[in-house]
Amino acid sequence: MIEDRLSWEVRAAIKRADTLKKIPASWKLSHEDLAKAEKQRDLTGSFIQGFLDADEISITSKDSVQLVQEIKDGKLTAVQVTSAFCKTAAIAHQINNCLLEIFFDQALERAAWLDAQFADKKSTIGPLHGLPVSLKDQFHVKGVDTTMGYVGWIGSNLGISDPKQVHQVESQLVTELLSLGAVLYCKTSVPQTLLIGETKNNIIGETLNPNNRHLSCGGSSGGEAALQALRGSVLGFGTDIGGSVRIPAAFNGTFSLKPTPERLSYRCVANTNPGQNTYRSAVGIMSTSLDGLELMLRADLSTKPWLRDPEVVPIPFREEVLSEYALRAKNDGTANDAALPLKLGVLWTDGVQPHPPITRGLHIVVNAMRSAGHKIVQWNPPNQREGRKIHWAFLKADGAHDVQNQLALSGEPLIPDLKEAFKLRDPISLPEYQDLTVQGLQYEAEYSDYWNSTAEQDGKFGPSTHPPHSQGPYSEFLNILNYTAVVIPVTKADKHVDTVDKSYQPSSELDRQNWEAYDPEIYDGGPVGLQIVGRKFEEEKILSIAKIVVSAMETTKAKNTSARVDSETAAKM
Amino acid sequence: MIEDRLSWEVRAAIKRADTLKKIPASWKLSHEDLAKAEKQRDLTGSFIQGFLDADEISITSKDSVQLVQEIKDGKLTAVQVTSAFCKTAAIAHQINNCLLEIFFDQALERAAWLDAQFADKKSTIGPLHGLPVSLKDQFHVKGVDTTMGYVGWIGSNLGISDPKQVHQVESQLVTELLSLGAVLYCKTSVPQTLLIGETKNNIIGETLNPNNRHLSCGGSSGGEAALQALRGSVLGFGTDIGGSVRIPAAFNGTFSLKPTPERLSYRCVANTNPGQNTYRSAVGIMSTSLDGLELMLRADLSTKPWLRDPEVVPIPFREEVLSEYALRAKNDGTANDAALPLKLGVLWTDGVQPHPPITRGLHIVVNAMRSAGHKIVQWNPPNQREGRKIHWAFLKADGAHDVQNQLALSGEPLIPDLKEAFKLRDPISLPEYQDLTVQGLQYEAEYSDYWNSTAEQDGKFGPSTHPPHSQGPYSEFLNILNYTAVVIPVTKADKHVDTVDKSYQPSSELDRQNWEAYDPEIYDGGPVGLQIVGRKFEEEKILSIAKIVVSAMETTKAKNTSARVDSETAAKM
Repeated sequence: MIEDRLSWEVRAAIKRADTLKKIPASWKLSHEDLAKAEKQRDLTGSFIQGFLDADEISITSKDSVQLVQEIKDGKLTAVQVTSAFCKTAAIAHQINNCLLEIFFDQALERAAWLDAQFADKKSTIGPLHGLPVSLKDQFHVKGVDTTMGYVGWIGSNLGISDPKQVHQVESQLVTELLSLGAVLYCKTSVPQTLLIGETKNNIIGETLNPNNRHLSCGGSSGGEAALQALRGSVLGFGTDIGGSVRIPAAFNGTFSLKPTPERLSYRCVANTNPGQNTYRSAVGIMSTSLDGLELMLRADLSTKPWLRDPEVVPIPFREEVLSEYALRAKNDGTANDAALPLKLGVLWTDGVQPHPPITRGLHIVVNAMRSAGHKIVQWNPPNQREGRKIHWAFLKADGAHDVQNQLALSGEPLIPDLKEAFKLRDPISLPEYQDLTVQGLQYEAEYSDYWNSTAEQDGKFGPSTHPPHSQGPYSEFLNILNYTAVVIPVTKADKHVDTVDKSYQPSSELDRQNWEAYDPEIYDGGPVGLQIVGRKFEEEKILSIAKIVVSAMETTKAKNTSARVDSETAAKM
Repeated sequence: MIEDRLSWEVRAAIKRADTLKKIPASWKLSHEDLAKAEKQRDLTGSFIQGFLDADEISITSKDSVQLVQEIKDGKLTAVQVTSAFCKTAAIAHQINNCLLEIFFDQALERAAWLDAQFADKKSTIGPLHGLPVSLKDQFHVKGVDTTMGYVGWIGSNLGISDPKQVHQVESQLVTELLSLGAVLYCKTSVPQTLLIGETKNNIIGETLNPNNRHLSCGGSSGGEAALQALRGSVLGFGTDIGGSVRIPAAFNGTFSLKPTPERLSYRCVANTNPGQNTYRSAVGIMSTSLDGLELMLRADLSTKPWLRDPEVVPIPFREEVLSEYALRAKNDGTANDAALPLKLGVLWTDGVQPHPPITRGLHIVVNAMRSAGHKIVQWNPPNQREGRKIHWAFLKADGAHDVQNQLALSGEPLIPDLKEAFKLRDPISLPEYQDLTVQGLQYEAEYSDYWNSTAEQDGKFGPSTHPPHSQGPYSEFLNILNYTAVVIPVTKADKHVDTVDKSYQPSSELDRQNWEAYDPEIYDGGPVGLQIVGRKFEEEKILSIAKIVVSAMETTKAKNTSARVDSETAAKM
């Protein structure tokens, strides 16, 4: 192919331009608007809504559960909803560079077909009927590229140009989504290699945090979370092998669920180094709402993915777990007197002190849960940095051969952030790898023993709450355990409140570097999200607990607001 | 230690003598009896019962479900039952060399304690109260060796002599068994390395097939199955990474369940090359009855092993699956008219033609199931030898370093059967290993796709029935798939019926060698067992189907017998 003889820079430029060409002219922003956005710190909310009409704002302000209900009730059509999200995603991409693939034409055609089906049969084809669902650019959708940010994958199937393969592969999850009635319309950006908590690649460059463009959007499912923060999507998929659906959700003020890897299908999904499956990447759900995570998990499991993907464990959606937890707290999150309150362990620090807004976020959750009558305990697990170290060794075990092979397809270089970590090395030996496996198993067992040691005699215990963190260990320790986690947004950094404690004495050089990296001015407005962590295959439990935590926080907030109003009223009297 | 300076031959001889010393004098056989046994082709049934009294015969003739019921009902005591099984195991070992560890003293002490508990509280401490359970010598029981057949492990913990470790480790499964009320009394022999379908090691030598001492007892859980065939145990545990609970059960006329590896706990269980966990060994249940397998699976899962072993998937015992299948056939195995009949795929050959008794066994099952109204279809899956090849490459990937390290502890040599397969080699490289992993995943996916392709539109399908076979592929293909299987005894080889078809044209050299290895005279009386195979984590389903198959076979047998009696009666009239 001619393209193969072009430089990687030219191939990337052509791809960028092709993607922009897929945005209809009426959704294109002017140079003035783009320049205005360029100067904007926060692109979310009113700023991006300035490019939408009232109907579009109304639709994209709704979350997934409401959207599918209104389509089912005939109040909205799939075309209306799809059109609103395509336009918002188009604008999001122009102002915040978050998409690798655009296929609005396919989406609108399918939405029209879904509307016709609905008109014809008076019923939806599935629980996601008409709902636009966005995908990290690892999932294969027929008819479009999957580049995963690699220039050498443009116009091919994982770098292979065989026309029988190119654009012909469909990930099993995509088949499931289509069977459930979802509308697919775009694929979101990723960092080169997927193995860094940022979103930068040589095709479209960097995606920033739309809440605060001084900050990173996180990664590797960073394009996905950035798009959701701009409400160009309310429900989508990422993957997570070291924090990749959790870091971006936390950074962008959205929600995510990282299941244990064998809960959702990874079949026919592009990935880095697919032969390393000792510690697998997990498909994760990302959403603007907690309900969205539950909607998607329930819907997808209803297709019995294990019948088609033998790596998926046959555990249906466990409604009984939701029922059990629904009994343990009232709607406002307070512990139900008739049942056992939740017990949550809190990790305040793993040796590297979280930045002030994150610690404040932890206090908000802890205070809310205590006020609601739940129990909070300290969490002092086996060294999480040790777990992270073992895990990271798996990710680097092949000496970057897989990554370098993909780069070699086009001649593109590593992005500067990865130059050291992913330069070509000798792989470790198989005995070293197997020894590492034994270390991993031991770490898993030790952590599990610690968890058990925190149980009351009645055998009940809750999850720990951990601050996600760009430094990795706060998220990555969880991947060696294959634990489940839900990320919830808690607050936003506030330069007036989250000031620097100059008396803090760092415990290590790393701790010092991290502490000094915090600047209240720069972080101001950045979202704070926290992880709620459960053990393996506890997805329904952790979603249930997240609901209770969110309700408890809302209750506390409402009480505080009403107390403030009361005291202000009293002061005026 | 002094022992370390002795030759491996002397250390093994001391260990053998020590083990025999643990048999009480009154249970020791005379030289005459031993000589008589030596000449005996079939040691089972009346032969071994010749050494027992009427009560002991009565007790050891009962299966596990009946035994726990009678103990619970106060008809038998734990001491009576334990004593009868200890004595039978002692005799079994003397005549058929099947035990590596004997700890009858511990067992009888515990049985007495259990009886006292029962007398005191008028209830059992768990569903296995008083039941003797035997263990393959990979499971750690406090106070006794785990040698796994390695001379270098005698008197140590996996070769380590640290007194803090020696005899101090307890496998999680053992803890569970004790909590359920089981009595542990002996550990059964294995082949060196565990990776061969025979049972030979340098400590006690070879265990033969007690049904026909011209034949092997299979392996690697061969001591376990041989003990059960002699009714020195009715319920126990083995492990399976290539057929190791299935081959011995099939060879010995007993039952076994090979679950998917993550269903039962392997925590703190000795193993070969524990760093190879891409395709894991599974803990499997072995029993003289199908009910025993169910009893044990239900009992063990009631302890929620996943809370203590993070490698176990949290799937409780699914009573609902048993109920579902109970509706699909009547008690006599015939398809219930109101429900869908079962559909079973049958693999008649994988290219290497099974020996005549096995093919006849397949016909017995097929005819019984057809007569009972179930559906039988041909099974033409992706090449199982290809799957076996990939799997075997994992087992050999480390170039036998782990095995050789264990041998080096004592200087013992490889047993002759393994001299070629496990001589020290360079391990394969990590990229080769990771490439093999991708091949394995692809094979799993292809096999799953084939299985789906055999489904009726109603989406229901049954398992395939496969002949186990000492050549490996008939059992080992299943380990790369991590499928579930139950082995059931079907018939016994009969030299008058299972004659050699001299017109058979072998399809390959391997096929020819296998075909020519069959000798009706030598195989006469050898049991024929078959595998019933389900997909991953379908343990309850496959147990349910095995029950239907066994009932259908009994019904057919009863009909045939009554037909024969009728015709004989008619002939006399």
